[in-house]
Amino acid sequence: MTLTPTRHDKTIATVCLSGTLDDKLVAAAHAGFDGIELFEPDLVSSTSSPAEVRKRCEELGLDIVLYQPFRDLDSTDPAQFERNLVRLDRKFDVMAELGVDLILVCSNASADAVADMDDLATQLRAAGELAERRGMRIAYEALAWGRRIDLWQQSWDAVRRADHAAVGLCLDSFHILSRSSTITELGEVPGDKIFFLQLADAPHKDMDVLQWSRHYRLFPGEGAFDLVEFTAAVLGAGYRGPLSLEVFNDVFRQSAPVRTAIDAVRSLGALEAGLDDALPRQRFEAAFVEMSVTPTNLASAEHALSALGFTQSATHRSKRVTAWTQSDATILVTVTTDAPEDDSSAIAAIAFDAEDPTGFAASAEGLNVSALPRVVRPGEADLPAVAAPDGVSIFFVSTAGDDLDWRRDFEPVPPTDVATSAGITGIDHVSVTAPYDRYDECVLFYRSVLGMRTDEVAEYPGPYGLVRSHLLRAPHPSGFGVALDGPLLRRGKWTPGVQTPQHIAFLTDDILGTLSALPADAPVLRIPDNYYVDLQARLDLTDEFVNRIRRLNVLYDRNADGEYLHAYTTVIGSQVYFEIVERRGDYRGRPLADAPVRMAAHVAARRGMART
Amino acid sequence: MTLTPTRHDKTIATVCLSGTLDDKLVAAAHAGFDGIELFEPDLVSSTSSPAEVRKRCEELGLDIVLYQPFRDLDSTDPAQFERNLVRLDRKFDVMAELGVDLILVCSNASADAVADMDDLATQLRAAGELAERRGMRIAYEALAWGRRIDLWQQSWDAVRRADHAAVGLCLDSFHILSRSSTITELGEVPGDKIFFLQLADAPHKDMDVLQWSRHYRLFPGEGAFDLVEFTAAVLGAGYRGPLSLEVFNDVFRQSAPVRTAIDAVRSLGALEAGLDDALPRQRFEAAFVEMSVTPTNLASAEHALSALGFTQSATHRSKRVTAWTQSDATILVTVTTDAPEDDSSAIAAIAFDAEDPTGFAASAEGLNVSALPRVVRPGEADLPAVAAPDGVSIFFVSTAGDDLDWRRDFEPVPPTDVATSAGITGIDHVSVTAPYDRYDECVLFYRSVLGMRTDEVAEYPGPYGLVRSHLLRAPHPSGFGVALDGPLLRRGKWTPGVQTPQHIAFLTDDILGTLSALPADAPVLRIPDNYYVDLQARLDLTDEFVNRIRRLNVLYDRNADGEYLHAYTTVIGSQVYFEIVERRGDYRGRPLADAPVRMAAHVAARRGMART
Repeated sequence: MTLTPTRHDKTIATVCLSGTLDDKLVAAAHAGFDGIELFEPDLVSSTSSPAEVRKRCEELGLDIVLYQPFRDLDSTDPAQFERNLVRLDRKFDVMAELGVDLILVCSNASADAVADMDDLATQLRAAGELAERRGMRIAYEALAWGRRIDLWQQSWDAVRRADHAAVGLCLDSFHILSRSSTITELGEVPGDKIFFLQLADAPHKDMDVLQWSRHYRLFPGEGAFDLVEFTAAVLGAGYRGPLSLEVFNDVFRQSAPVRTAIDAVRSLGALEAGLDDALPRQRFEAAFVEMSVTPTNLASAEHALSALGFTQSATHRSKRVTAWTQSDATILVTVTTDAPEDDSSAIAAIAFDAEDPTGFAASAEGLNVSALPRVVRPGEADLPAVAAPDGVSIFFVSTAGDDLDWRRDFEPVPPTDVATSAGITGIDHVSVTAPYDRYDECVLFYRSVLGMRTDEVAEYPGPYGLVRSHLLRAPHPSGFGVALDGPLLRRGKWTPGVQTPQHIAFLTDDILGTLSALPADAPVLRIPDNYYVDLQARLDLTDEFVNRIRRLNVLYDRNADGEYLHAYTTVIGSQVYFEIVERRGDYRGRPLADAPVRMAAHVAARRGMART
Repeated sequence: MTLTPTRHDKTIATVCLSGTLDDKLVAAAHAGFDGIELFEPDLVSSTSSPAEVRKRCEELGLDIVLYQPFRDLDSTDPAQFERNLVRLDRKFDVMAELGVDLILVCSNASADAVADMDDLATQLRAAGELAERRGMRIAYEALAWGRRIDLWQQSWDAVRRADHAAVGLCLDSFHILSRSSTITELGEVPGDKIFFLQLADAPHKDMDVLQWSRHYRLFPGEGAFDLVEFTAAVLGAGYRGPLSLEVFNDVFRQSAPVRTAIDAVRSLGALEAGLDDALPRQRFEAAFVEMSVTPTNLASAEHALSALGFTQSATHRSKRVTAWTQSDATILVTVTTDAPEDDSSAIAAIAFDAEDPTGFAASAEGLNVSALPRVVRPGEADLPAVAAPDGVSIFFVSTAGDDLDWRRDFEPVPPTDVATSAGITGIDHVSVTAPYDRYDECVLFYRSVLGMRTDEVAEYPGPYGLVRSHLLRAPHPSGFGVALDGPLLRRGKWTPGVQTPQHIAFLTDDILGTLSALPADAPVLRIPDNYYVDLQARLDLTDEFVNRIRRLNVLYDRNADGEYLHAYTTVIGSQVYFEIVERRGDYRGRPLADAPVRMAAHVAARRGMART
């Protein structure tokens, strides 16, 4: 990528946001967008006239850059085409009042669509002549489900043949990438014929492309498409208009619009950074994970850590925080009295030991992530921190002995000579429940602010409903993971499980040794016998091995790349538990088929029904 | 249909219900199921041993009729097939402990699936021999996404060739109807070779069949398949086992299981009634719709009705209820002081004037719909009533002057000589918001208890999210409609709109006359000018016509069958409003593209921003 850093105008289609038109305009302006695409139904249902909308946008500092969509322009029936031109002319009236000169015309999806490319070009040219007379321009777009024109190359062919100054292309990343179209031919398109660029990401879905487009689009960086490569190609072809988002998403349609708009502008900021090759590339390791507990949960948290072989290694100089360490794993336990519920425990923070902690924080701020205010006492380290959308605080720290070395605030506890290690070597990942409305925002946050990469996207059934899971990992060599889990559908009143489970997964090189070394009162989660009976039926395992892991309550999975052995503790307080993991070979992701077993076991443990 | 009424055993797969295995068993027993299909993952994650599950089922009066599923039995690799037989044998161990002798083996969906029909039959026969030695039987099922076997006819070919007493068919309505397979050849299958029948309905979806099956299945009578025809064909072929539900549904997976189980058993009751041709076939008309208002809303409700041309025709002899009438439309207005919120208004009841009101109520009770308890004073009519799952009470009444004539409880108000009619002739439909977890249950209720038919299923965008809509209508000549509207996704905290809108749509033969006749202070909802500008651009309408409907705030739609003109009132209290409808020609359904305009106009009216 050799583009010089350019600041592009950022715009958003009103359909991306929830609310009335005014709600949407306020949200877009608040988030810092330069302008909007006006989605026609938002205007039609608005009580404000086009002139009033224009004035409102001016007040808010928003350009109206596109009016959209205009459907079914071409027709095999000449009389119908004439009526369509009249309809277009009426829309030009509205656009003149709005002060916008560009309209999106999408390829005809009806039975009436024109198939002959010369006829289509002739009709486009006639529309271009009308537009020119009105001082307007037409951006023609191939819908992925267009009847005759469903590839961008066809839309370009039509525009090229129409050969009219007022007729150009609209390129939409979804319509192109959902069809796996090549974009190499973009080099043949003169930059000034690309009138508009709409950007949307999407998850992989094996479904009808129209439904996929209308319900599941995401902001760039939240899905599975490579928007950086795509946008670079369009810019490389000479496009100089705004980077504009057009995202139809069922969740965004009903989420608070200001929050969605901030997420949206962050996605374009991250895309720009990607274009400039300026996304964070720092190596970082987890310095610590901070767990908050209420005074009533402190003893069980300390008992669990201690039983798992952790040693209290330091205490905070001024706060009620203790550090527990085992090899490369450090857990801070903070006693809090302002928990939302009395019995609450939570993963409060993750601290990353980075080469340039302040640089990390600065680039986060550049992505519209607010720095967290902190109360720092004289002499204490003022650690840069930001809030992840999942509610976890992210600290950027050093272990270089400088001002950002978090250890400065702690007083070491003299080591005892009792060897307590259970063989835990570090932290594999942290799993948090992403809030339903912010799931995709969380994915973008970890990808853009921390430069993490998706390792696995999956869905699995729990006793109380389906769960979606997205595992992100830090760049090598750290590989530190954050797993976002959350209900596939927003939960209702029937929610007997742990609402927002969180856990810390510790690594060991020898889980059987680790589990064997634990004291008898370690709060290991009891796994039902049925699991082992099924495991042995499914996999070719020796009786000896199965009996051994059964005694230790270790779960097991195997795939072509390797093996994954793991065990859990019971839940500490209301939502946090620990996992101990041994990976053998190159097993990636997590053994999600074990998740329902773990969940049901946690339910049984909570109900006191576990047969111990 | 000439089957004699037979009472079939009713069973349900545990995967249909939310919760741990014990939650599911309790719910199935409570709803009155005779037995269960045990879904293997529910057993694997259970802390109860198979023997304990068997005992628990015995306590609850539940038979375990099927163990399922067993996947990937056949293999192109003989050594792998041998291992698969060992795996099967281990499952037989578990089944012996459970006390179940039938296992579902589904067609192989992996790359290893056997294509040659003779080879497959040989392997099935080998499995049958193993089963016979263990006293077990195998029900072989074609998955709609099986690699080699994906049609029931192929599975029957394999079973026929396997030619083993312990190997029979499992027929699953979803796998068959989703593929639009014919079932006429079922007559060739000996009844005793159909070992099991799984029933599931589903909505029409244009998507990957695996995803459709795993997320969107419904109970019979809730979707778009004809389960009565299908089941009759299977019974006609001689199948004598239970009617068993296997429904994978994202919402049911996370809804209270007792409620879901009752819905499920109702679906089988309605299916049996359909098989016996015993579903309600009565003609009925809407006698009245009852609206409850708080004392503070009474005046605005009365004002609205009065302004729309209704006359107070009667008052209740003992309660604070007044009847308002115009031609065939009667609205009861009940003042309530126990509304959930102070400002609440609601559609409390719909009364149907039926030939045999008590027969209606009795068949409802046969479908596990509880009768509503009523406080009846001496001399008052004791009207049979049931609760619809959407919270509306359904009364079955007469107008024959007998004990069930609801008018007995009312004292007529002497008519005044002022002619007030605005030309409203009756009630077209009532629209209610179906609770998210009970949407499909509502559909089944109106179809099975009242014999209503689906007129239109659709989705439309509102300012605060997507809405799904299902319009049901009574048999001719009444055609009375109930529209179930509800959010496509469960709403979160951003919910500035009316949460659970409800409305009553009145019919007129001349909406322009009706609207023109209304007094100046009638609470007609102001429709924005933008709507009319767009309407005129879209449709070939004269300026005169558009100006006229614009002045009257009438919305307009046209399709190939006819026209639909309609207007709305503002919201009375917190959630109820009225619609006035004129249908021209054979326009079916509702003009849902107008819905977002109506919603935004209601928001504007509520915010006092309407430009009047």
